[in-house]
Amino acid sequence: MDLLLKHKTIRKFLGKEVPSELLENILTAGCRASTTGNMQVYSIIVTKSRAVKEELIPLHFNQPVAKSAPVLLTFCADFNRFSKWCELRKAIPGYNNFLSFITASIDALLAAQNVCIAAEDKGLGICYLGTTTYNAKEIIEVLNLPKLVFPVTTVALGWPDEDPVQTDRLPLKAVVHEERYKDYSKHDIDELYSYKENLPESLQFISENNKETLAQVFTDVRYKKSDNEFFSEKIIEVLKDQGFLS
Amino acid sequence: MDLLLKHKTIRKFLGKEVPSELLENILTAGCRASTTGNMQVYSIIVTKSRAVKEELIPLHFNQPVAKSAPVLLTFCADFNRFSKWCELRKAIPGYNNFLSFITASIDALLAAQNVCIAAEDKGLGICYLGTTTYNAKEIIEVLNLPKLVFPVTTVALGWPDEDPVQTDRLPLKAVVHEERYKDYSKHDIDELYSYKENLPESLQFISENNKETLAQVFTDVRYKKSDNEFFSEKIIEVLKDQGFLS
Repeated sequence: MDLLLKHKTIRKFLGKEVPSELLENILTAGCRASTTGNMQVYSIIVTKSRAVKEELIPLHFNQPVAKSAPVLLTFCADFNRFSKWCELRKAIPGYNNFLSFITASIDALLAAQNVCIAAEDKGLGICYLGTTTYNAKEIIEVLNLPKLVFPVTTVALGWPDEDPVQTDRLPLKAVVHEERYKDYSKHDIDELYSYKENLPESLQFISENNKETLAQVFTDVRYKKSDNEFFSEKIIEVLKDQGFLS
Repeated sequence: MDLLLKHKTIRKFLGKEVPSELLENILTAGCRASTTGNMQVYSIIVTKSRAVKEELIPLHFNQPVAKSAPVLLTFCADFNRFSKWCELRKAIPGYNNFLSFITASIDALLAAQNVCIAAEDKGLGICYLGTTTYNAKEIIEVLNLPKLVFPVTTVALGWPDEDPVQTDRLPLKAVVHEERYKDYSKHDIDELYSYKENLPESLQFISENNKETLAQVFTDVRYKKSDNEFFSEKIIEVLKDQGFLS
């Protein structure tokens, strides 16, 4: 519990490597996460070599955290292994569809979060790379992912070389609803976002980006409609290529 | 780490309620999970009342675990709150697309797994209900989820009234790949699934279902192609309805 409450994303790592045995223990703990029907429909690609990392890093938009991390873990939705098993056991798999993509993605993400917590428990630091879905197509090529395998997220892992201030969170009541969803009034939004909007780092963010509001930094700079639409089309194409959408 | 390694899914709960303060602490720990750009694009619906539970339980196919749990937590991908904030701050949100659905689902699932670990740390038991995506359409109606909100998973939560044997997992090398994906040969599959296939509970599963192999129990009984295809279509329609797919 304390470990969860103390979580900070780490973006700068020491050159020191992560011992294989330690990594194995962390991944073992990761694989104890709940999984749909105990099918374990995910795979984890462990990248440590300079050669493969040099192919992956540009696909994560050359983020310094990707360059700095001694280990990149790519968590994939994977119905390939399970389907191969079915085929070899006189069973006809039916997992080339969207529901199975969602199911396998859930499996992959629960395992990913378990891995992150196990890693932090051992003093390691982590950072999720959301860029994975943006460039899923190219990551699939680099990692040789076959049909029915899709990279959902990547975790950069290593020994922390920084101790950043913990980031803010919205008040709990902003994300929790009692019994049913209660939609937000103008007054609710004002109240729930007020703390965040008035943080010194938010004000700095606004001024650095020459914007009028913090929300504009998100819509005009960080998560733009045109980018979101471009990458949405790209992901849908990749899901078709990987056999999850007909 | 030990807590993660000891995880068991609990499907039978005591009648004892989960105190509000304890639940609040657990949800607070959940919300420390990593989140894309610190946007927290998820919501958690806490259902405790008999009235709402009676509407939800049939949508989870009347699973005994859903009936037994004093608390149901529905984790939703949510770009509604964030988009409302943008609109009230002279910013034009661009999150009515598939990438944003994936991003928000990732956020929701990392928070869900953190909540589960925090709950187990406090002695509570959990069970994920994969049925959430199957009946997303009806769950949206019951919980009044507006556009840009989609229920990704549900966690049944309570005090354990059973202590089951821990389920098996595939050997770690079945799910972990070094550097790049190494596809599975017949020999690999035989080796990796042998332990699971020969467990007494697997053999019982096969005989109870009058099947020849364990894989057939999955393809013919538990996760059937026809069901997967039916629910895939249904989810895609719901994503359109909720504004995540045009």
